[in-house]
Amino acid sequence: VLLNCSPDVRAQIMNTRVLHPAQGSRHSPVAAVVLTNGDVDHVAGLLSLRESQPFAVHGTQATLDAIAENRIFGVVNEALVPRQALKLDRGARLPGGIDVVPFAVPGKVPLYLEESEVVVGRETEETVGLKVSAEGRSLFYVPGCADVTPALRDRLRGAALVLFDGTLWQDDEMIREGLGTKTGSRMGHVSMSGNSGSMAGLAGLGIERKVFVHINNTNPVLVDGSPEREEAQANGWEIAYDGMEIEL
Amino acid sequence: VLLNCSPDVRAQIMNTRVLHPAQGSRHSPVAAVVLTNGDVDHVAGLLSLRESQPFAVHGTQATLDAIAENRIFGVVNEALVPRQALKLDRGARLPGGIDVVPFAVPGKVPLYLEESEVVVGRETEETVGLKVSAEGRSLFYVPGCADVTPALRDRLRGAALVLFDGTLWQDDEMIREGLGTKTGSRMGHVSMSGNSGSMAGLAGLGIERKVFVHINNTNPVLVDGSPEREEAQANGWEIAYDGMEIEL
Repeated sequence: VLLNCSPDVRAQIMNTRVLHPAQGSRHSPVAAVVLTNGDVDHVAGLLSLRESQPFAVHGTQATLDAIAENRIFGVVNEALVPRQALKLDRGARLPGGIDVVPFAVPGKVPLYLEESEVVVGRETEETVGLKVSAEGRSLFYVPGCADVTPALRDRLRGAALVLFDGTLWQDDEMIREGLGTKTGSRMGHVSMSGNSGSMAGLAGLGIERKVFVHINNTNPVLVDGSPEREEAQANGWEIAYDGMEIEL
Repeated sequence: VLLNCSPDVRAQIMNTRVLHPAQGSRHSPVAAVVLTNGDVDHVAGLLSLRESQPFAVHGTQATLDAIAENRIFGVVNEALVPRQALKLDRGARLPGGIDVVPFAVPGKVPLYLEESEVVVGRETEETVGLKVSAEGRSLFYVPGCADVTPALRDRLRGAALVLFDGTLWQDDEMIREGLGTKTGSRMGHVSMSGNSGSMAGLAGLGIERKVFVHINNTNPVLVDGSPEREEAQANGWEIAYDGMEIEL
C-alpha cells in the first residue's frame, strides 16, 4: 500500500522489489495507493504505474475529482484500477488487512486548481491525514498540514507513530534563499520551528515516535550535523530518509 | 534541449548535472523541451520540472492542446515556461543555436485521448519526427512511428544519424508474453523485424548511423548476446542505453 504516489515512484518500487522479489515478468508490489490530496508530488507517480497491473486508488471524492478532470490519468485504466472514494472519518479496508481512516487537516486545493483567491487553512476533503492500522497497531500519516490545531493535537495524542509534514524549517525559507516567492503558510505547510510550528504544536502529547516526512530540499534538517537537525532531534523528532524502514 | 520529457526526467537531469555542474542552488540544465506527441512517456516528466526555472516547451498545436486540456500541467507556470507551437515542416530556433523541424509520421492520438474507434497510421500533427540541426550537422529523431513510408525513406536518405522507434521486435510481442492485449501496430509502433519492419524499411538508404531508441522492456534486443540483438547489429543498428553519448 502506497501512501501517495510521488513522481519518483519507480525508484521506490525498485527498492521494494529488492525486499519482495518479483512474481512474474511485470509483477508490481503495489496493491493500493491512498492519496492525501491532489498535488503533483502526491499523484504524478500514478502515470508511472500503468503496466496493466490491477491495483486500487483511494482518495476523497475531491481528490478523485481533481484527477478525473485530467484525461491524462485515463492511462491508469479504471477497468483494472478502480478509484474508490474515502469518506472523512470513515474507515476503509485495504489489501493486507490494513485499515485507513482519512481526516481533514488545514490545507488548500491543489496548486493547479488554485484560482485568483486561494483560501489556505480550511479543513475539507482537499487535504487529509490518514490513520493507518493493522494488527492492532496504528500510525498517523500527515504529509501536508497548514496548522496544528487543538483538534489535531487531540487526535494524535498518545499515538505510537506520527509521520508529519516536514516541508520547511521556517515559513520564509524559500524566499530567503531566493528560490521562490511563497511562504510555507501560502503553500499549506506549517513550519517545523517557532511557537506556532509543528515541533511546539506536537510536543507533550505522549506520541511514542515522531518522524518528519515530505521534507523540502531547502530544509536545513536534511544537513547532517546542522543546528536545525540537532534541534529537531533534541525535540524528539526523526528525519525520514530514502529507504527508511520502520517497525511498529 | 530535451527531446521529449519522460517520467524519469529527474534521473536524466542528475546525469546531465555531472557533465554540466550546477550554477546556483536550483539551476536546471534544461533550456527547452521539444515534444513529438502527447503520450505519457513523452510529457509526464514536465510535472517534475516545476522548479520556477524558465525554459520553453515546443510541440505542435495538437500536442500543446492535449497538455493544455489537463489542468495539472498548470504547475508548469506558463509565465515562466512559454509553450510554443511548432508548425509541420517549418523550422524553429532553440537555445544554443539548435534548429528543429517537425514532420508528420504515421501515428495516432495519445492513449488518453483515444475514443472508441482509433485510427492508427494517419500522418498529422499528433505524432511527429524531428530534424535537429546545429553547426551544419543534423540528426533525425523519430521515437514513435507506425510505418516506414516511401516519404519517410526519402526524408531519411543519407542522414548522418537516425534515432528511431525501437519499441518492439515483433508486432505481437506483448501478447505472446502475456503482458498486454495490443499489437505494436495498434499502439502506433512499427516493429524492428520482418519485411515491413523498420530494419528492412530503412535499409539501403546510406544512413551513416542508426540507433534504436524508445525500446520497450519486452524487446529482446535489450538482452546482451541475444540473437535479435545480433541481428539488429548485423543490420547496422545500435541499441541505445541510459547515459549514451553521441558525437555528430
